[in-house]
Amino acid sequence: MKLVIKQDILAKALSAVGKIATPKAGLPILSNVLLRAEDTKLTVAATNLEVAMTASLNAKVDEQGAITVPARLLTDFVSNLPHANVEINSEETKLKVVCGGFSSVINAMLADDYPAMPEPDEANELVIDGGTLKAAIQGVTVCAGNDITRPVLTGVDFYSENGELYMAATDGYRLAERHIMATNKVLTSIVPSSTLMDVARLLPDGDATIKYNDEQMSFICGDLTVTSRLIDGKYVQYRQLLPSETNFVAKVNRADLMKATRMASLFAHAVANTIVLDGNPEAHTLTIRTATSQLGNNSSEIEADFFKVEGNTCSVNVNAKFLADALNNLEGDEAMLMFNGGLAPIMLKGANPDYRHLIMPVR
Amino acid sequence: MKLVIKQDILAKALSAVGKIATPKAGLPILSNVLLRAEDTKLTVAATNLEVAMTASLNAKVDEQGAITVPARLLTDFVSNLPHANVEINSEETKLKVVCGGFSSVINAMLADDYPAMPEPDEANELVIDGGTLKAAIQGVTVCAGNDITRPVLTGVDFYSENGELYMAATDGYRLAERHIMATNKVLTSIVPSSTLMDVARLLPDGDATIKYNDEQMSFICGDLTVTSRLIDGKYVQYRQLLPSETNFVAKVNRADLMKATRMASLFAHAVANTIVLDGNPEAHTLTIRTATSQLGNNSSEIEADFFKVEGNTCSVNVNAKFLADALNNLEGDEAMLMFNGGLAPIMLKGANPDYRHLIMPVR
Repeated sequence: MKLVIKQDILAKALSAVGKIATPKAGLPILSNVLLRAEDTKLTVAATNLEVAMTASLNAKVDEQGAITVPARLLTDFVSNLPHANVEINSEETKLKVVCGGFSSVINAMLADDYPAMPEPDEANELVIDGGTLKAAIQGVTVCAGNDITRPVLTGVDFYSENGELYMAATDGYRLAERHIMATNKVLTSIVPSSTLMDVARLLPDGDATIKYNDEQMSFICGDLTVTSRLIDGKYVQYRQLLPSETNFVAKVNRADLMKATRMASLFAHAVANTIVLDGNPEAHTLTIRTATSQLGNNSSEIEADFFKVEGNTCSVNVNAKFLADALNNLEGDEAMLMFNGGLAPIMLKGANPDYRHLIMPVR
Repeated sequence: MKLVIKQDILAKALSAVGKIATPKAGLPILSNVLLRAEDTKLTVAATNLEVAMTASLNAKVDEQGAITVPARLLTDFVSNLPHANVEINSEETKLKVVCGGFSSVINAMLADDYPAMPEPDEANELVIDGGTLKAAIQGVTVCAGNDITRPVLTGVDFYSENGELYMAATDGYRLAERHIMATNKVLTSIVPSSTLMDVARLLPDGDATIKYNDEQMSFICGDLTVTSRLIDGKYVQYRQLLPSETNFVAKVNRADLMKATRMASLFAHAVANTIVLDGNPEAHTLTIRTATSQLGNNSSEIEADFFKVEGNTCSVNVNAKFLADALNNLEGDEAMLMFNGGLAPIMLKGANPDYRHLIMPVR
């Protein structure tokens, strides 16, 4: 393998692909990246056996070939090089990298020893605006579970229904759903939420093409491709959890409620993060309270407009972290809180009508 | 205790003083701050029994008194409050803090249970420009040791000699010395380097007054006072380690050498951080190399001017981290490296003639 490539192009690709490379017990080669030079392209790739990432980069290839080297070392070395042409040369199990006055010979391994990279399946294809995809991922993955004994809940329900495309996730205590767009494709996939977080973090801007079958899904954007296995199983029928009616609807300033929640959290960690939201329609206020025998008490009062007032209570106990996560993911200056008594979930909505977030109360 | 104080003044003091408050096994009260209201002042204080810090703040005191509360909780709560007047009220073991719509009652302890705070000793006094003091601390503490079996070396030698004031520190492998100013005071103190790092981080800008006796030293600046115990013992006679002559003097661009050192470090951690500096007076270059059987090899070449060339070698093995630390602490664009053969220490100097840094070679 012998080629010349621009430092910034290589550094950017390595910093994305290198994040997938992590050693697994007994498989040290997974901390490597795979380099393959063919025609006018250098392919930089890595897999952790769940997710694989490939970047296909323009390069001046003088000699085809492939090799695999420690991802971290190569990434750190290349990212410190000056913005100039980088000469790359491999000989058996040595990779020589030269740029300006800097030169390294890195101990490498044969490309044949690296696990096979999955190929995107062309069977089904879907194109989504990259910004919408990233916002959807960020909005729902926060609610995905991490209990590996319930693998389905560690994923995101990515599906189409009645001509509309959705993502949703729940850990049993909270739920987020994002409507993405109209579609005529049929999709019922459970995608590992860790994969989606990688996609949101690493995929460049621009339209993303999604290629999928029953077993894997590829996200393709610019020169980067992320392919992940899917989670086997059937996602929970979460729609039946959504409250069909609400007794109280309060509109508050989102930043005010975030600040009050942060204040309450300082105390609430002593009581399993439980805080009390207490609406007072007559005073036009929402009070955020927490009381602990260990640390003391806290109370914040913020302005609230009540749009619907039925029944005689609008007091509910919630987990402060869940509330903070929900508020963080709403859009716009205002947050709508929909209550239905102290034992029913609270629904939160922001400026984006395509996103809703549900929190189960603490009993 | 009953008082009103501006939020920003209180938040700033708590964030400085709170850093000293850390729980010790068996002494949970050390994670508290002490609040004392007297006349027109609120004093916020904390000690870890080695270092004590006190901030004396303007406040409208309606009722004198004292109390001690968890530092972290009070600091986090006050720093999140709006920029307005904060009302503080204590009753026995409760501290009530109110500001805007935010209110907390924090569980407190009696002030009598808090350890006594040391008073600055007026016996000896010295005034140093705050910027010079902080630069001296940063420049020398990096070389202080952390071997608690040699307590003297965990401190900084802060002393006067022949009418000049110095700070110096060494861990046996490297040494930094900073000349501070002319003085007619007599001073021979060993100050814990951790104390000095607190002083550099927390003391506000402006002249610093230093008050000291044989056992303690106080740094006073603005409304903040830091008092530390001193380390008992006699500092090593480090001056005899300084090379009296040099064979090679090389001048390099400091940023270039830092970059090359960083490159070499990527490989050098596999060989106890050892890198080789190799001067080539004829080619006007300095080569920074490292060779490892595990990861591979690295070599960087940077421009160098040689001012003195005697003997036949200018090759020396050094610890890459030590070299990076030294270069970080020099001032100006250029670094002078003074060699005296492969077994003698290298001396480094930057634009500031008052600072010199010595590194023992790796044999």
